[in-house]
Amino acid sequence: MKICRYVVRDAASGSASPRYGLIEGENVIEISGAPWGPWSRGSRSTRLDDVQLLAPAEPTKIVCIGRNYAAHAAEMGNEVPKEPLMFLKPPSSIIGPEEAIVLPKYSQRVEHEGELALVIGRRCSQLGDAEDALSFVVGYTCLNDVTARDLQKSDVQFTRGKGFDTFCPVGPYIETALDPSNVLVEAHVNGARRQSGVTSLMIYPPAFLVRWISRMMTLMPGDIIATGTPAGVGPLVAGDTVVVTIGGVGVLRNPVQAPA
Amino acid sequence: MKICRYVVRDAASGSASPRYGLIEGENVIEISGAPWGPWSRGSRSTRLDDVQLLAPAEPTKIVCIGRNYAAHAAEMGNEVPKEPLMFLKPPSSIIGPEEAIVLPKYSQRVEHEGELALVIGRRCSQLGDAEDALSFVVGYTCLNDVTARDLQKSDVQFTRGKGFDTFCPVGPYIETALDPSNVLVEAHVNGARRQSGVTSLMIYPPAFLVRWISRMMTLMPGDIIATGTPAGVGPLVAGDTVVVTIGGVGVLRNPVQAPA
Repeated sequence: MKICRYVVRDAASGSASPRYGLIEGENVIEISGAPWGPWSRGSRSTRLDDVQLLAPAEPTKIVCIGRNYAAHAAEMGNEVPKEPLMFLKPPSSIIGPEEAIVLPKYSQRVEHEGELALVIGRRCSQLGDAEDALSFVVGYTCLNDVTARDLQKSDVQFTRGKGFDTFCPVGPYIETALDPSNVLVEAHVNGARRQSGVTSLMIYPPAFLVRWISRMMTLMPGDIIATGTPAGVGPLVAGDTVVVTIGGVGVLRNPVQAPA
Repeated sequence: MKICRYVVRDAASGSASPRYGLIEGENVIEISGAPWGPWSRGSRSTRLDDVQLLAPAEPTKIVCIGRNYAAHAAEMGNEVPKEPLMFLKPPSSIIGPEEAIVLPKYSQRVEHEGELALVIGRRCSQLGDAEDALSFVVGYTCLNDVTARDLQKSDVQFTRGKGFDTFCPVGPYIETALDPSNVLVEAHVNGARRQSGVTSLMIYPPAFLVRWISRMMTLMPGDIIATGTPAGVGPLVAGDTVVVTIGGVGVLRNPVQAPA
């Protein structure tokens, strides 16, 4: 099942307020409520061409994991961490598919980081070793952990370098039917492949991350966990188009714009 | 004006769902809506003794500033930063007045950090030098930036050490009538004063912080900015009671509990 959040492009043909829906072939079927609550299938179907897809979740927090692929840690000159390296991106950084990543004037070096993102479906806290951590995940989507690399390095804390508005493209939808243990994560810029890695190379796999994070922070429905980026990160400049692709999920494409 | 969020203790006497209100003397007057939207004064008044005060905001993000008092930077062995040092606490860490700070079993050293918190009242982004940054602040409250000091140091990133559930007491209410430029911030543990400093000693004062953060992250109504802690941080152990006091605002008290 592919869960999306969308607005109908022509407001005259229906409500312009965002809603959740299911993508079925070339159509979007509206649902009542949100996919992490009680919901039911609605009767209204809209052609996919006639909707704008939005980021498919409205998280209270975006928990990100750094250096979770050994080859990426090595390309940044870092050791593999003894425990997951965790940081947060603010919800204000989220954009949807096809929305522009706006380069901030404060950075001279903005880079892409394509990642598999988990979307939490049920509140969870203090998960035990025996609990099925992935049962708290409603599905999977693509995420671009856009990073001002110069600020990330000079600040030490990652918050500014990774927290600018538009620095968290998410989408295009949540795929609920996925085994995340061995899928290909890639990022292309202007059609050229930059990043490529399979999730089986993660140092801390998805179920571990959900359990580990839940022991510190209560995870809420809609919360996002970004699982780290494979090797091959590189710069983005105005005019670029960056595409994050995850096998079995889909394609997240965003243009890059000069500072406003 | 003192804006609070509360539930009536005896659910039989009214709705048990949280709502915003105004504290007037010994009573809480309910308001319709939230203080950062259109709201009106309701007719229902409840005795303050009969309500439980909750954290007075529901932020989409909690932006914290580190090392904003020179004496605290010095006590931690740190330089004063050339720009504000910014990090995020997750909304899941928020608790209200009188709620327990629960020590996590993963840390051997949890410390208090009493701080003046700003609550955003209007969406703001990219504020210009000439704009009145404090006009986007609805009011002021007390915040305790509880920190697992050992994890903060060993992780380098502050997210885990500062992000545990219950690590962000906020309250007891939002005071809208305050000039934040020269108020006393104190923290007491079991009645003994531990921290004390006036906000005029901040390296980056409140208006600067709102403007500076707005140029990176769009600030939303209800968002919280924690402005840094004065010197005197110290450990909390189970059984302690920690109190953050801000002159002209109020008193935020929380007990400390052993790991669950």
